[in-house]
Amino acid sequence: MSENWKEIKDIAVKWVEDAGKMLKESLHNSLDIKTKSNPNDLVTEMDYKVERFLTENIEKRFPQHKMMGEEEAGKNIGSTDGILWIIDPIDGTTNFVHQKYNFAISVAVVKDGVGKIGIIYNVMQDEWFTAIEGEGAYINGIRLPMATSVDLPEAIIGLNGRWLAREKRIDDKSLHEMVRKSRSVRSYGTAAIELAFAACGRLDSYISFRLSPWDYAAGLVLLKEVGMVVTDFQNKQPSLLEQSTILVARPSLHEELLSYVYNHNGFNH
Amino acid sequence: MSENWKEIKDIAVKWVEDAGKMLKESLHNSLDIKTKSNPNDLVTEMDYKVERFLTENIEKRFPQHKMMGEEEAGKNIGSTDGILWIIDPIDGTTNFVHQKYNFAISVAVVKDGVGKIGIIYNVMQDEWFTAIEGEGAYINGIRLPMATSVDLPEAIIGLNGRWLAREKRIDDKSLHEMVRKSRSVRSYGTAAIELAFAACGRLDSYISFRLSPWDYAAGLVLLKEVGMVVTDFQNKQPSLLEQSTILVARPSLHEELLSYVYNHNGFNH
Repeated sequence: MSENWKEIKDIAVKWVEDAGKMLKESLHNSLDIKTKSNPNDLVTEMDYKVERFLTENIEKRFPQHKMMGEEEAGKNIGSTDGILWIIDPIDGTTNFVHQKYNFAISVAVVKDGVGKIGIIYNVMQDEWFTAIEGEGAYINGIRLPMATSVDLPEAIIGLNGRWLAREKRIDDKSLHEMVRKSRSVRSYGTAAIELAFAACGRLDSYISFRLSPWDYAAGLVLLKEVGMVVTDFQNKQPSLLEQSTILVARPSLHEELLSYVYNHNGFNH
Repeated sequence: MSENWKEIKDIAVKWVEDAGKMLKESLHNSLDIKTKSNPNDLVTEMDYKVERFLTENIEKRFPQHKMMGEEEAGKNIGSTDGILWIIDPIDGTTNFVHQKYNFAISVAVVKDGVGKIGIIYNVMQDEWFTAIEGEGAYINGIRLPMATSVDLPEAIIGLNGRWLAREKRIDDKSLHEMVRKSRSVRSYGTAAIELAFAACGRLDSYISFRLSPWDYAAGLVLLKEVGMVVTDFQNKQPSLLEQSTILVARPSLHEELLSYVYNHNGFNH
């Protein structure tokens, strides 16, 4: 069966737009915030509410499709066979509850393990990043150009300061050395938006020591369309089923940045 | 003489709005970029153009007022007597040329050393942060609430990763320890916007090892209006005439954060 990805993308964008409205409205009310496993990982009533809104719509419209979400849907899905929706109802929950700013809804549609649709919606700034496999990536409907070359001394790297504060390497391949050699670093507190920023050239690289499929699935579709290189720290393709390290970089930068994170022993989370 | 600060603020906002249009338009053209003293410090044709646009308007309308700008105006002004405009035509020049995003125009009006007006305009997001001394601070015309209490484990700190990568302290008062004890860090690459974010509660603290008066003057007016504490790393008020370290924090956080930066020996710039 050949799907009409354009039609599915347009339907998904409409649902995400409605979900965004729910989030905006909720910020006028007080939030029922529960803490998850650590204080960096807030989850709110709205996280569940938006995920259910999206999964109920998908189930009704596409009963054959599978779903994996951050909160409830398909936690142990085990396979990417068939059509799978990978959903983060609120990427950047700390920003959501603390800043009421810089959070996103991230939705990917994957067929037999291949990303077909990627949608990242920066809700408060009303900025849309969308892509269909083979048809380019877009920001607010304007096509994004292919990634150009940038060298490390000119590169802006998306990297959370928490990793710099936990770094144990002290040799010339430490993260600190990498940052000192770069132009600058940025940190926005939302992986989905940071991946979208790497796709549109606001970041030349994005590095994370731990992302879940719902954090990165939509971003990967966007990044592929503009020719950005995405691997884990072992230079392999991230699985869409498990947590992964993530190194995104312009083609001219990837090999050099990989040398700073390759086989990185990581941190105690 | 008693100035009508409301009227001066409204005039300044209009000029800044026009300057913002010049910047937006310039992003459609190629930029004539020269590098300043280091690769992190780009300056462009537009930096000079916008500063001149603002200073020419000020000179014409307020011939008695003095001016200090990042590029040309009043470099060696030496005194804050009288009325002084402190101008950053583009705060976040790296973002401006590299991201075409997250840069600001920052304008402060100071009388006899006291900040009277602060305007920070996030150009691409069309977000206005404004304040008049004693009359509150505003985001897009909506009054900002007074700063509430937040403890370090819940605090989001604005801090550029470059300082973490250069940190030499290894004791329990290192920046790394401070970051590990906080909720998270953010870095947007523009001091003016980061100060504005601290004023509106998106950041609980903002720390910089080196800011010039045009980077922080407008921000200080906003922050005072919402009760945020601003000092240098020696717990003194930043001069409006010289470079300074800057520690902004909610009142509940300032003493604790000061212990991490007090008498910090700094870095080789």
